Amino acid sequence: MSKFTMYGKMTAQPGKRDELVQILLQAAEGLTSNPGCELYIVNISEDNPDDIWVTELWRDAEAHADSLKDPGAMELIQKARPLIAGIEPVRLRPVGGKGL
Amino acid sequence: MSKFTMYGKMTAQPGKRDELVQILLQAAEGLTSNPGCELYIVNISEDNPDDIWVTELWRDAEAHADSLKDPGAMELIQKARPLIAGIEPVRLRPVGGKGL
Repeated sequence: MSKFTMYGKMTAQPGKRDELVQILLQAAEGLTSNPGCELYIVNISEDNPDDIWVTELWRDAEAHADSLKDPGAMELIQKARPLIAGIEPVRLRPVGGKGL
Repeated sequence: MSKFTMYGKMTAQPGKRDELVQILLQAAEGLTSNPGCELYIVNISEDNPDDIWVTELWRDAEAHADSLKDPGAMELIQKARPLIAGIEPVRLRPVGGKGL
């Protein structure tokens, strides 16, 4: 199984969650034409008002790494940086299931 | 947005992770014919050897709730219970993105 998956957990600066969500949705929009990206779903936490979780699934680790070198993505990362209080990626290995 | 999403984080009893993974993969197999279930991906943690994370996405909360009443699912839940040391669902609300 070479697919690459992770959850990108981010805590926004107080009051900045929705602004950060919009940037992440722009990033998702930019990935629609990227065949290496299979899932990039932006979720907000039901329990912690500042937390955002992005469900990511990629063809492989290389596709994920390459995406971070895209100029458009790099620009969005710069825009998002001051809005982020914390980042805790949940590093996973996909085993199987529906939708993989 | 009425879709229902969550991450099912489970910590297996020591040495029982792979057995638990197999039961969850059986559950995923049972969901292939369930149109209300869009994603049920079983992942293992790269950092904690006993942790399993299931990425779930459902048509709506009702489809998720109904799935738990399925006799096959209930049987698998009974089988899994003694293998589980802890459960921490991450309750989310999907906002948008690729694959939603």
